Amino acid sequence: MYGELMFQTIFMVTSQREGDIIDITPQVKKAVIDSKVLEGIIHLFVRHSTAALTTIEFEPGVLSDLRRALSVLAPDTAEYAHNARWGDGNGRSHVKAALVGPSLTIPLKAGALMCGTWQQIVLLEYDVNAGRKRTIVCTVMGNP
Amino acid sequence: MYGELMFQTIFMVTSQREGDIIDITPQVKKAVIDSKVLEGIIHLFVRHSTAALTTIEFEPGVLSDLRRALSVLAPDTAEYAHNARWGDGNGRSHVKAALVGPSLTIPLKAGALMCGTWQQIVLLEYDVNAGRKRTIVCTVMGNP
Amino acid sequence: MYGELMFQTIFMVTSQREGDIIDITPQVKKAVIDSKVLEGIIHLFVRHSTAALTTIEFEPGVLSDLRRALSVLAPDTAEYAHNARWGDGNGRSHVKAALVGPSLTIPLKAGALMCGTWQQIVLLEYDVNAGRKRTIVCTVMGNP
Repeated sequence: MYGELMFQTIFMVTSQREGDIIDITPQVKKAVIDSKVLEGIIHLFVRHSTAALTTIEFEPGVLSDLRRALSVLAPDTAEYAHNARWGDGNGRSHVKAALVGPSLTIPLKAGALMCGTWQQIVLLEYDVNAGRKRTIVCTVMGNP
Repeated sequence: MYGELMFQTIFMVTSQREGDIIDITPQVKKAVIDSKVLEGIIHLFVRHSTAALTTIEFEPGVLSDLRRALSVLAPDTAEYAHNARWGDGNGRSHVKAALVGPSLTIPLKAGALMCGTWQQIVLLEYDVNAGRKRTIVCTVMGNP
Repeated sequence: MYGELMFQTIFMVTSQREGDIIDITPQVKKAVIDSKVLEGIIHLFVRHSTAALTTIEFEPGVLSDLRRALSVLAPDTAEYAHNARWGDGNGRSHVKAALVGPSLTIPLKAGALMCGTWQQIVLLEYDVNAGRKRTIVCTVMGNP
């Protein structure tokens, strides 16, 4: 049993506003199909310092609960050294993104993501500036 | 030097209650041995939206400190939109699991996990419902 | 297109004090070059239970904002069961490290890290004891 295939692709999503949580499971599924890998892993990476990746039940209540929880750590109303230095308003965005992280790996079996039923793959948009175009790199490794 | 082998297996653990932190290092070691990979990586993924994986010193004091820290973000007594919508009581469970994350990768050398001495691999049970059976997918890639 | 190469190396960094955030991007770039992998992934793992890895804009303001955010979860002044049991002072260190996590994977293309412009790779030193020597394991997999 050899891990023969390696496939890399990117896709983009555009967020509308701070706090957006975007279900990228369909795009990730497409990358898996395009890779022709049946058994192995897909690694996802968002190439930005104010966005992050995780899995979650994609249900509006949970998404709103997650937003609130991160705001405990990095409240909108706190003073940020980053903002003071650069005149940016996105100090809280950097903090949240660094904590959740840009990298996520999912196992594959029979050409399918091995996520649980209530486990969707999401991009978390933390920047305060609207309309961000976000690039996600997909690397698939495994057996055909 | 070729990354020739790819091996995938699953194991299950049953948690007793919310807040359980289960040392899964022995099961992960067994997966490494079964894979016959000596040098490479093992990727771990928990297939549930109310559980997570990380590393920690497996010592009761630290485990209790970690529980308390996550409760700052997602307190038991807060109101959760998820609970309001679905009549579930596990809004906080989803939030904690999404923050810690379901995915963890450990390097391997000479057929052993390259964890530090005080660094055990743990499953974090966040669901409020007792007696959950949790599935962890192991994917090992590397050289024999 | 075959994922043929697998390369593993380690490097060390020495932190000065609790809260240090060290830009390890140069060392990671060197590991990528040494691996001769052009397209694939590099996995990073810190072998310690009181340090962690993430990406962030390496700018003093952001770094100080991140330090403060983690202190909300694990304040210096809280009482830690770990400290009470072991006479250590690093209960908060373990908690922060377990939340951020020891593992990070970055995709590679044309022999370069596919990080964003403002996305540096950092080691977070959380231990209260000064002058820690930290080992990071790099595993590179992909195509030459």
